Amino acid sequence: MEIRLAQFSDHEAIWSIIEPVIRGGETYAMPRDMNRDDALAYWTAPDRETFVAEIDGTVVGTYFIHPNQLGGGAHVANCGYVTSQRARGRGVARAMAEHSLSHARARGYRAMQFNFVISTNRRAIRLWENLGFETLCHLPDAFRHPTAGFVDALVMFRRL
Amino acid sequence: MEIRLAQFSDHEAIWSIIEPVIRGGETYAMPRDMNRDDALAYWTAPDRETFVAEIDGTVVGTYFIHPNQLGGGAHVANCGYVTSQRARGRGVARAMAEHSLSHARARGYRAMQFNFVISTNRRAIRLWENLGFETLCHLPDAFRHPTAGFVDALVMFRRL
Repeated sequence: MEIRLAQFSDHEAIWSIIEPVIRGGETYAMPRDMNRDDALAYWTAPDRETFVAEIDGTVVGTYFIHPNQLGGGAHVANCGYVTSQRARGRGVARAMAEHSLSHARARGYRAMQFNFVISTNRRAIRLWENLGFETLCHLPDAFRHPTAGFVDALVMFRRL
Repeated sequence: MEIRLAQFSDHEAIWSIIEPVIRGGETYAMPRDMNRDDALAYWTAPDRETFVAEIDGTVVGTYFIHPNQLGGGAHVANCGYVTSQRARGRGVARAMAEHSLSHARARGYRAMQFNFVISTNRRAIRLWENLGFETLCHLPDAFRHPTAGFVDALVMFRRL
């Protein structure tokens, strides 16, 4: 697996990976009807670095990293990750997460924070815990899940 | 005191109130060198409603309200408030906070969340506690205070 900075020519692949997640509305707080341009503008915004993970030349995942806050809060990183549905179970998410932790350290970030991990997303929570993240708090009923209704979101954090 | 929606003609007054807070860098995670246009673009962004508080025709405070997250998270409001330094101690912050809670209810929000209350900002924390907010967690060393160094930020929350 190779993880490299995304280029404009990756946009189609990125969109094909993030669109089902946006449409599903189960794991990210993004509008389910968000269009391609808005979604790509968000995922590759100028305030962030966007990476893709490739296996045999095929993009199988993407993540971004940026400061979670500006000014006095800019030493804490925040990331978003999505793995292609077709590449589940191949360690793509873990590889991207490890890459992002190294990259964040190299960039001088002192910690990483996830602001809104949906409590029903057990797979992600397990991975973050495995990678040393702790849950700082539950945001009660902060996410309206399309089938589970109002569920908590978690603030997860680890120092680097 | 009157609290009303901000208009373009209020921009000069809003800037005169938020500039010292941005330059001070003690209470908001905004770049201390942020320029007028960027700051006003942030404070009055299209995703939010921006209000001003007036006493005798003079703008003495301003706040914005917007969804804290999009999509499945859009039922929780987030706000930012600044009171003019010259109008401290006159209940402006409390009046804006109460206005924002009523307005949030009227808009159908189910809760309000502050993502990043700086732990050294005791005055603000006291006010939020007074208004029924609870601290969900401390984000360790999440804010680099210009004189106090790395300090915690608080996630504060209340249902509506």
